[in-house]
Amino acid sequence: MPELAERLRGVPMAATVAMTIKAREMKAAGVEVIALTIGEPDFMSPMHAIEAGYQAALKGETKYPPQDGTTALKQAIQRKFLRDQGLVVALDEIMVGNGGKGVIFDALMATVNPGDEVIVPAPYWGAYPLMTTVVGGVPVIVACPQNNGFRLRPEDLEAAIGPRTKWLVLNSPNNPTGTALGEADLAGLAAVLERHPHVWVMADDMYEHLVFEGRHHTLAAVAPGLRDRVLTVSGVSKTYAMTGWRIGFAAGPKPLIKAMVTMQGHVAAGVSSVGQAAAAAALDGPQEVVGTMQAAYRRRRDLVVDALRTAQGLQCHRPEGAFYVYPNVAGCLGRTTPGGRVLNTDEDFALALLEERHVAVVHGKAFGMSPYIRISYATDDASLEEACRRIVAFCAELR
Amino acid sequence: MPELAERLRGVPMAATVAMTIKAREMKAAGVEVIALTIGEPDFMSPMHAIEAGYQAALKGETKYPPQDGTTALKQAIQRKFLRDQGLVVALDEIMVGNGGKGVIFDALMATVNPGDEVIVPAPYWGAYPLMTTVVGGVPVIVACPQNNGFRLRPEDLEAAIGPRTKWLVLNSPNNPTGTALGEADLAGLAAVLERHPHVWVMADDMYEHLVFEGRHHTLAAVAPGLRDRVLTVSGVSKTYAMTGWRIGFAAGPKPLIKAMVTMQGHVAAGVSSVGQAAAAAALDGPQEVVGTMQAAYRRRRDLVVDALRTAQGLQCHRPEGAFYVYPNVAGCLGRTTPGGRVLNTDEDFALALLEERHVAVVHGKAFGMSPYIRISYATDDASLEEACRRIVAFCAELR
Repeated sequence: MPELAERLRGVPMAATVAMTIKAREMKAAGVEVIALTIGEPDFMSPMHAIEAGYQAALKGETKYPPQDGTTALKQAIQRKFLRDQGLVVALDEIMVGNGGKGVIFDALMATVNPGDEVIVPAPYWGAYPLMTTVVGGVPVIVACPQNNGFRLRPEDLEAAIGPRTKWLVLNSPNNPTGTALGEADLAGLAAVLERHPHVWVMADDMYEHLVFEGRHHTLAAVAPGLRDRVLTVSGVSKTYAMTGWRIGFAAGPKPLIKAMVTMQGHVAAGVSSVGQAAAAAALDGPQEVVGTMQAAYRRRRDLVVDALRTAQGLQCHRPEGAFYVYPNVAGCLGRTTPGGRVLNTDEDFALALLEERHVAVVHGKAFGMSPYIRISYATDDASLEEACRRIVAFCAELR
Repeated sequence: MPELAERLRGVPMAATVAMTIKAREMKAAGVEVIALTIGEPDFMSPMHAIEAGYQAALKGETKYPPQDGTTALKQAIQRKFLRDQGLVVALDEIMVGNGGKGVIFDALMATVNPGDEVIVPAPYWGAYPLMTTVVGGVPVIVACPQNNGFRLRPEDLEAAIGPRTKWLVLNSPNNPTGTALGEADLAGLAAVLERHPHVWVMADDMYEHLVFEGRHHTLAAVAPGLRDRVLTVSGVSKTYAMTGWRIGFAAGPKPLIKAMVTMQGHVAAGVSSVGQAAAAAALDGPQEVVGTMQAAYRRRRDLVVDALRTAQGLQCHRPEGAFYVYPNVAGCLGRTTPGGRVLNTDEDFALALLEERHVAVVHGKAFGMSPYIRISYATDDASLEEACRRIVAFCAELR
């Protein structure tokens, strides 16, 4: 067989995907698994979005879309940034990609030379370091321990920046911790960034509408002086329960957006015209659905946190946003399950929980900080209650 | 401003896109431009495909799709390969991507190391060398002159293969020439390839249903001995007039498909679930639409070829497939337009034709063989007739 590319070596399938597949296989074999692995809203996409996609197709909007996105969607995105962040963005400062991931890939692929560094605060969404490696860059991980609320400290950012630094990735609200950065947090980081004009900043705001305490803040609004190197990434996936449509977008400086659009032209030619019509309708349509989902997620967060705080050996913080909790499992390590498994790592914990109690979660190692597990509470209350009961029982039975 | 990536240097926007944008701008300024630049069917997507996408969304199929594609679409693709090519393909030998381009990008990105060579017969779809460059490879162009019907000769393939060769790209029917390879052509190339087991072969069959003389042949069927290194690429874009949905697919050896799926996980996470439902319906539904479009394209091919053969200085072959003609403009070079432009290259020809006669075509240089122009006849008969009249008049007025 001819060879594969070096860049795939050491870049495994994302752990979240691997655990999701494992859970799916157990389900297919008849096991009643509750999967809390994936960051997937359990709501319907808005009816007016579905209808808009359908109408667009009927009207013949099934031709090659412009590589940067349809004008209609870009205008809706323009209105969204003004409405939600007070950001005035020109049409040529916006691009639409195949999901948030497509946007981020285009950005990294358009900017990162071999050996360039991308600063990724941990805990992180596993995709950041994996994608960085795939495009030839070097992830520079900066630990953001729980004792500082999983927040990146300005002094740690300062220490991590070097001559090869190309990007800082800021994900708020954060996957996996749910931590949402406030104005003061962002201002502190901006002060550091102002001293390092060779660094792009990616503000991944995919969870922007899932902030339960206060409101969402984004770097481009807090630090307008940085706007010529801040890329603000978002999408309709989490806000409108539209993950399957694969529509993400970004606003940023014109030269960067232009390069990303050129890259997207080579990577995928463009983004589904039908999906773009649906996304525009979601952004421009009635926004009640956003509040409804936010209220549901907030209730579920409290349900899960309150339940997990009764579990022996778990230490569970109450996150400000997103739809994850990231409990510490240090108190369970070194112990043995009824099935005879010794839990030496958070991966052991996650695997044993799946195999013995049929609850699928993702181990903290996949997010760059152990010993933790990530629980996605983007599922119905009954499943969450049952899953928490199983986790509490699992912890209680450890010897 | 922080820097962009080296890999973007010298990788311009595709010429087809650039000419399309130029034509669009002239139209917006009120000029009656006829654009024959883009390979875009002017038919509607099938109603049953549109309906299937809508129903899927209503049923809640709006969640993250599997990274390799939905089982329903992969099964439809399996049936398609059996029906059309007699190929028996397992589900884990199939992947779905964001259009043919997405599939090809994933394949190149998953296999090409810096400096690896990709053999691209010319004339070629400009994307092949551009995408090769973007992923760090080196395109090796092999000229396939018109005197051999724009066909790759086995001896030229043999001479082009070296130790760093990673891929051969075979595009049949070909964009831009419309040349369709027959069984004997493929067998001759297969004999060479059998001597070079380190080379992958990409059979880009995107235009497989647009063959007007005889029927389509594909390498994996003609040379089963090569099947462990042949990737067969196709999609619903051209066959079903579904370019805007961005659904391509490929069948190939399991290790390659697995690597491509892993890569797609990093590039885009997956492909629109709604689009995949529509594509499955197109592949499984009534196929009359395919014959209807084929007949229309055949009629248009003859319309355009017959008209262009009356143009002074043009030499127009009659292609076997796709929806392009690729006339030679050597007889027009060195001459001067009524507007005073001297035509030294095919690019001069294309620009002068657009500016003076308002017909947009793409110059052969963009496809690696000059002096030619590519005319897409995927548009209505009336526009084609008027465009041909303008081209004939343009040529007649050259001094």
